[in-house]
Amino acid sequence: MSTSIPVRHIASRDNPDYRAWLRLAQGRPGRRDARVILEGEHLCRAWLEHKGPPPTLVVGESALSLDWIGPIWQACAQGRRVVLQNNLATVLSQVEHGPAVFFVVEAPVPAPPARIAAGSLWLDRVQDPGNLGTLLRTAAAAGLRQAYLSEGCASAWSPKVLRSGQGAHFALEIYEHADLAALTERLDIPLAATTLEQAEILYAKDLRKPCVWLFGNEGQGVADDLLERADWRIHIPQVKGVESLNVAAAAAVCLFEQRRQQLALMVQARAARRKQG
Amino acid sequence: MSTSIPVRHIASRDNPDYRAWLRLAQGRPGRRDARVILEGEHLCRAWLEHKGPPPTLVVGESALSLDWIGPIWQACAQGRRVVLQNNLATVLSQVEHGPAVFFVVEAPVPAPPARIAAGSLWLDRVQDPGNLGTLLRTAAAAGLRQAYLSEGCASAWSPKVLRSGQGAHFALEIYEHADLAALTERLDIPLAATTLEQAEILYAKDLRKPCVWLFGNEGQGVADDLLERADWRIHIPQVKGVESLNVAAAAAVCLFEQRRQQLALMVQARAARRKQG
Repeated sequence: MSTSIPVRHIASRDNPDYRAWLRLAQGRPGRRDARVILEGEHLCRAWLEHKGPPPTLVVGESALSLDWIGPIWQACAQGRRVVLQNNLATVLSQVEHGPAVFFVVEAPVPAPPARIAAGSLWLDRVQDPGNLGTLLRTAAAAGLRQAYLSEGCASAWSPKVLRSGQGAHFALEIYEHADLAALTERLDIPLAATTLEQAEILYAKDLRKPCVWLFGNEGQGVADDLLERADWRIHIPQVKGVESLNVAAAAAVCLFEQRRQQLALMVQARAARRKQG
Repeated sequence: MSTSIPVRHIASRDNPDYRAWLRLAQGRPGRRDARVILEGEHLCRAWLEHKGPPPTLVVGESALSLDWIGPIWQACAQGRRVVLQNNLATVLSQVEHGPAVFFVVEAPVPAPPARIAAGSLWLDRVQDPGNLGTLLRTAAAAGLRQAYLSEGCASAWSPKVLRSGQGAHFALEIYEHADLAALTERLDIPLAATTLEQAEILYAKDLRKPCVWLFGNEGQGVADDLLERADWRIHIPQVKGVESLNVAAAAAVCLFEQRRQQLALMVQARAARRKQG
């Protein structure tokens, strides 16, 4: 118990730590600052679950008395714990009416693997933070474990993307600034892209083995040079005369069609084993 | 040709029409103003296609010279056409770098049908404008034609929802402020809700006949009293240990699983006819 670091209190808006956190929360980190700020009970719990205690926990004074803060406070006992005066916590918060709790952590920066053989999500210049967060969340829910983001995608660890990712970030390896065209050389599995032209219907495609799913920019879709490298061109059959699907909705349809086929395979295999046994 | 109304020019920010449009564009219409403003080539074209010429077309001076504006300008010849001085058009625009073109139209306010027998989308307190717009877009792409929105949903015709809907609004009948609990009395088809508890797996469900799809608030899901009225409780089988799907992603998965089953039915029917013939 006595090994924990003393709790600090910050009451001045000129405190340099506070000013740095404020920049992180507003999505404008300093040039050499690789840290990110996670806000709210849900994201902080998700980080604890996937990554363990953070280097720094920041809590607004009035959040200290909340029931659910106790376990988080205890779990962070070996790191820095900071209590912020309420008015500073309110300014730091990017969420309306949320009780103020924050983790300040380093964003993981993994190196891409030498060969890519696991199903993964590739994104080409997906600019909207809400779309990007939703795509990561959908990928994690569908069982993918890697996401590759090209130059021109929204910043994965920005507050808005973190918020719409809802913790999916911590269940994935996220490779930012990825040169997708170059990475196609490392692929041991097919590259699947959705497109309207010369494409097979999603539901007619055998998706039981893993593939890499490539989705593109909200307005322009996947860049031509990347599309040329795709092994599969896939089309989601939608009603004629209406706008195509939003990129995050299209990805949800594709990833869960694959999951449906894979689950059916598992059910078949189980039935076959039962027959044999 | 000579029957068209003379083109008006507005150069003052104090012009009462301009001030009213500005309020619409900023999502704060006057109390008795049922008009909405559509911005951009895509939304304006989609309105023309589905609804015909608007009562009022507003174009920024510098947009007048663009190639694609010609056909829109011509199509609106029987209504009011207004040219805005560039600086006023820039302030009116809610889109970065977009050339300024706007329709000012009345939002349709349809009355709910006496009986509900067509597949439709029901939303219970979906608050995020981006989610709501994406849900409408997905519903239209999946072939639904009606959307019922409870009190507490984002305003369907607000600029943000229109933008993420990408024209889906004009392909749907949208019933806002709908009392969903009361409307269950009018249902001639099953009401399907997604939930984690006591639910059937989506992929094991026969969805070939139409149903009503009910999705709920981002944080709280579908309200209990509504969930109790659902005929089907459906669960999307996702990977354990990660956050559930975003509501718009969940809807995309469900609506397109239904579409997959319905398309398979059509393919079977066609094959059967061929065999007979």
